Amino acid sequence: MSEKKIPYKIYLSENEIPEKWYNLRADMKNKPAPLLDPGTCKPLNAEQLGVVFCEELVAQELDDTTPYIEIPEEIRDFYKMYRPSPLVRAYCLEKALGTPAKIYYKFEGNNTSGSHKLNSAIAQAYYAKKQGLKGVTTETGAGQWGTALSMACAYFGLDCKVFMVKVSYEQKPFRREVMRTYGADVTPSPSTTTSIGRKILEAHPGTTGSLGCAISEAVEVATSNPGYRYVLGSVLNQVLLHQSVIGLEAKTALDKYGVKPDVIIGCAGGGSNLGGLIAPFMGEKLRGEKDYQFIAVEPASCPSFTRGKFAYDFCDTGMICPLAKMYTLGSGFIPSANHAGGLRFHGMSSTLSQLYHDGFMEARAVEQTSVFAAAEQFARVEGILPAPESSHAIRVAIDEALKCKETGEEKTILFGLTGTGYFDMVAYEKYNDGVMSDYIPTDEDLEVGFRGLPAVPGQD
Amino acid sequence: MSEKKIPYKIYLSENEIPEKWYNLRADMKNKPAPLLDPGTCKPLNAEQLGVVFCEELVAQELDDTTPYIEIPEEIRDFYKMYRPSPLVRAYCLEKALGTPAKIYYKFEGNNTSGSHKLNSAIAQAYYAKKQGLKGVTTETGAGQWGTALSMACAYFGLDCKVFMVKVSYEQKPFRREVMRTYGADVTPSPSTTTSIGRKILEAHPGTTGSLGCAISEAVEVATSNPGYRYVLGSVLNQVLLHQSVIGLEAKTALDKYGVKPDVIIGCAGGGSNLGGLIAPFMGEKLRGEKDYQFIAVEPASCPSFTRGKFAYDFCDTGMICPLAKMYTLGSGFIPSANHAGGLRFHGMSSTLSQLYHDGFMEARAVEQTSVFAAAEQFARVEGILPAPESSHAIRVAIDEALKCKETGEEKTILFGLTGTGYFDMVAYEKYNDGVMSDYIPTDEDLEVGFRGLPAVPGQD
Repeated sequence: MSEKKIPYKIYLSENEIPEKWYNLRADMKNKPAPLLDPGTCKPLNAEQLGVVFCEELVAQELDDTTPYIEIPEEIRDFYKMYRPSPLVRAYCLEKALGTPAKIYYKFEGNNTSGSHKLNSAIAQAYYAKKQGLKGVTTETGAGQWGTALSMACAYFGLDCKVFMVKVSYEQKPFRREVMRTYGADVTPSPSTTTSIGRKILEAHPGTTGSLGCAISEAVEVATSNPGYRYVLGSVLNQVLLHQSVIGLEAKTALDKYGVKPDVIIGCAGGGSNLGGLIAPFMGEKLRGEKDYQFIAVEPASCPSFTRGKFAYDFCDTGMICPLAKMYTLGSGFIPSANHAGGLRFHGMSSTLSQLYHDGFMEARAVEQTSVFAAAEQFARVEGILPAPESSHAIRVAIDEALKCKETGEEKTILFGLTGTGYFDMVAYEKYNDGVMSDYIPTDEDLEVGFRGLPAVPGQD
Repeated sequence: MSEKKIPYKIYLSENEIPEKWYNLRADMKNKPAPLLDPGTCKPLNAEQLGVVFCEELVAQELDDTTPYIEIPEEIRDFYKMYRPSPLVRAYCLEKALGTPAKIYYKFEGNNTSGSHKLNSAIAQAYYAKKQGLKGVTTETGAGQWGTALSMACAYFGLDCKVFMVKVSYEQKPFRREVMRTYGADVTPSPSTTTSIGRKILEAHPGTTGSLGCAISEAVEVATSNPGYRYVLGSVLNQVLLHQSVIGLEAKTALDKYGVKPDVIIGCAGGGSNLGGLIAPFMGEKLRGEKDYQFIAVEPASCPSFTRGKFAYDFCDTGMICPLAKMYTLGSGFIPSANHAGGLRFHGMSSTLSQLYHDGFMEARAVEQTSVFAAAEQFARVEGILPAPESSHAIRVAIDEALKCKETGEEKTILFGLTGTGYFDMVAYEKYNDGVMSDYIPTDEDLEVGFRGLPAVPGQD
């Protein structure tokens, strides 16, 4: 097909923001496994989930048959402040690599939260407000999700309580201040404000916290305060649903120019970005309409897909959250402290896990020094300083483009550039100073995590 | 005129990026006064300026008659990576204020340098490369200009030496790391690498540096190393010329919807943003075609326009740079240490100074706590965390909109949102903690600065 001249950035107009989210599960023959009650090991129903989550979000979480779900106007109005996000043709990167490949990326970093997380944060805040709630609680690690949620809550006038992993709270004071500027109440975790926090502090007095522990505290506060619910920025089906705006916009933009990607690449921590980016393309693949190669990229130091087990597991280390069936390293697995590059969650979206298990998607694990090398190369030619998370996708996109250079193939590569690295300069500094190292867990390291997998009937 | 429905963001297409910069001086009856040699007090010619600056930039600096100057294709290609920048209708802010005013802002923060500085940095790097130079030197305070120049130099493969005010180098390590990621050589100023730096360190052993001192060091390195020139991010005519893309794009976008602003507001430190934003509108005013109200906003702690003298002065504290005629507080004036909000240059663009002197423009000085209050209010409803500098313009835009609320006038307000505040969270933290204070220099404080004004024949 002869191509129209493609601009550096393809911007859609405001009225091309999707009016409906696309629910990928509707087109999956093998549905993702349901969330289980950790006590009874039985699927959780709407009522049980409603204790922790907002009503409408529970409905979305459980709905695996409706293909399109309307985006409320209030959410679309907020989307208009930073969406449609640009789809960028990486002309400068292609030139620098000398590749015949055509590289595109969907850039989600042009908003104050600095990432795609805002797409789901605003939706979750909206439904909380609609339900008449007073506020929401959540956890945040590096702070992208917490920032996004703070912005969303400020917009709808909701109270926002964020438990921030203590080491990040202390080492990333700037993220904390952005959240405070948006009016959020930010507590370092573990804290003495929850019984789980106090228990953890008693057992491990000097602990600097973990994401799993912060989740446990946020859930406790949500369930013990009337008018509060817990919200989560990744892993869940509802989050992937909201993030489908990424893929829908990308597809609309590419279709305009008659471009069909051959390879679609995204970084994967809990799966929110990858699930959103690939959604409409994967839908076509599942329905047998078109074929694409999908590649999930994860850190070699936290390799859920490539070295994890497909099993029911806790989403939190406090083991109070529902059990999800997913590729997991065990809820007790914590990546080495030298791991700077985000994507440190032990598990993975159930939806993506099922798709990977069924062979619709590949996965690659990459080491962090090579990720930062890709980040730097990209920043210098494309002018965007990428988040470490996003740079995992850049690494593999560059690798694929270099393969094309060898073979002469003119593949079209699309990857998700989830965010910017402005708050990750400590990691960049390590890389700039040449003191960044890599870490690959041994099989024995992984065995420790697997030993903590819960005993669920019918599972090894 | 009946208005078309105006979207939240007006994006122009790539081919609407201006093909020519607009040189406001061509339409000025009273031209800005020429730069003088500090030794002889005679106007500097191209040859003399060429020792410090790139040839083509000198030509632009001296040209006050050509109204339009072609933007080379290489620069336009780079612009395509982050331009056209969005013109945003601040619907959410209008609603929050309950004002009948219509507020627009031109947002220049959607690039990794985080500000409009990149518009001139890429032009200056291009001309340096074209001249066959090896590299350029510059100074940076808060780091926006240094970051922009690093990005531009990385793109064209030029060496980039940045002298960063020592206190910023130490307190803003993240900015420094962004520059290093783009391959720049960043030196804390004053340093022992220059004779001026050594002299200053000898006289003031514990000094944390100043912008004027960093300028002196950068100029010394440029003039003592073959193949290097000095570049500057503000104040100069050439910079205002490059920044005219801001105003040209804004005007094109507004014209599309038949919108004519009544009031145009910009923050002013050296004048780069304000001069660029107002350029085409001021041109119409100077030619008698249309009328606009222009408001320059400066910090009350560094009030060049509102309390300075219109006189020839040094641009640097080392007193080695040319003399410029401008509104100035004296090159020895340094704002109080409690001043967090940028815009701390003692002088002002000669072009803007002349326009202000001739009554084409107003100026207002605002205090920093009120600036941060405006910043927070804006961030919460518009979703963008503004730079402290930009927030000066927000403050006055809100003030003007609130006046409209009282009078019922439906004024159209346009302001320049120059950048984002991601690297200014220390200042935000002070504000969040309620420990930010204001500073207004006394007349005696100002007298000290005025005493340092050079003796130029014909000037008091």
